[in-house]
Amino acid sequence: MKPVSRTRELEAQLADTEKQLRLLQKISRFMVREMSLSDALQRIVSLVVEFTNADSCLLYLLQDKELVLCSSNNPQPETIGKVKLALGEGLTGWVARERRLLSISREAYLDPRFKHFSDLPEDTYEAFLSAPIIIRNHVAGVINVQHRDPHAHSGGDMELLTTIGEMAGSLTALATLDSATLARADLLDLVMQPAPRG
Amino acid sequence: MKPVSRTRELEAQLADTEKQLRLLQKISRFMVREMSLSDALQRIVSLVVEFTNADSCLLYLLQDKELVLCSSNNPQPETIGKVKLALGEGLTGWVARERRLLSISREAYLDPRFKHFSDLPEDTYEAFLSAPIIIRNHVAGVINVQHRDPHAHSGGDMELLTTIGEMAGSLTALATLDSATLARADLLDLVMQPAPRG
Repeated sequence: MKPVSRTRELEAQLADTEKQLRLLQKISRFMVREMSLSDALQRIVSLVVEFTNADSCLLYLLQDKELVLCSSNNPQPETIGKVKLALGEGLTGWVARERRLLSISREAYLDPRFKHFSDLPEDTYEAFLSAPIIIRNHVAGVINVQHRDPHAHSGGDMELLTTIGEMAGSLTALATLDSATLARADLLDLVMQPAPRG
Repeated sequence: MKPVSRTRELEAQLADTEKQLRLLQKISRFMVREMSLSDALQRIVSLVVEFTNADSCLLYLLQDKELVLCSSNNPQPETIGKVKLALGEGLTGWVARERRLLSISREAYLDPRFKHFSDLPEDTYEAFLSAPIIIRNHVAGVINVQHRDPHAHSGGDMELLTTIGEMAGSLTALATLDSATLARADLLDLVMQPAPRG
């Protein structure tokens, strides 16, 4: 390989890796800020779209055994809290039930697991990357990244979305913690006892 | 600059950035695993030492207005839970009180804010990098990275430790959340109300 093309390739890889690092650092900051859960999740989906050049990012949380659409970078107010999927239903439900990352680079709508929603424009998108949202080792939701046109997901993209699913889960769990409980907590006692959390 | 040296420089930068990304991804994984808080913090300090080539990493948590040593990569069992600092006492106390990152590249022990502990070998180390541990926008502890020999900390090192301080805080806060409270939590209700957390 010629030095110049090797240099360009390295520059592109470095820019991409730095972008991924900054994305995780920004999400980490949301975890320690005082903001509503809806604001924090909304900012995560916006950042994911910005950093991955995706056309859509949808985030579902699990409630009463259903996946409920909680955040979208293209918010249609009538869909938030309304679009619901059973565990195992559609690509999103499959990711939640199997607790596995799913990557489809083209024609996601032809996948036998696909479920059509007439009210979501994302239904016609080609590429689909989806990771479970995890709270304390259990599936608590799903985050989907979609591209209108065919798009190959790299191993780095997949690892990044896996981590974002973990961070979104941690952020959601933190939002259930009230300040009084937190203020009362004896951190030293907690750290000195080697018993598993929970 | 000659193409070859530019290539080497880029390769080194890329390797370093990838290492930082992997470190945050590993810490994120601890947040969603079932493990004791002491185990999780212990793994964080071990990873920080491994990824930064430091000689020491010490983690203090704030309890009753004192900073208590909770985790160390060189665990001397008699120091954990025993070494204590007031807010503002020593370099560590300064970081907690000021809620600021502190970077000293050489002769940290000559800093007027330094406090000597006869029982900590880290007292003789040259370089000191320290960031506050944050829980919900408040200081909850401090994490210190020390090198025996003089060591210049890059902007990237500083940003990385800032993020690790946030992630360690989030992990600690999550450990105070009991499973029953979490299981009862209505995530959908939480996400649909735009009130600030807390």
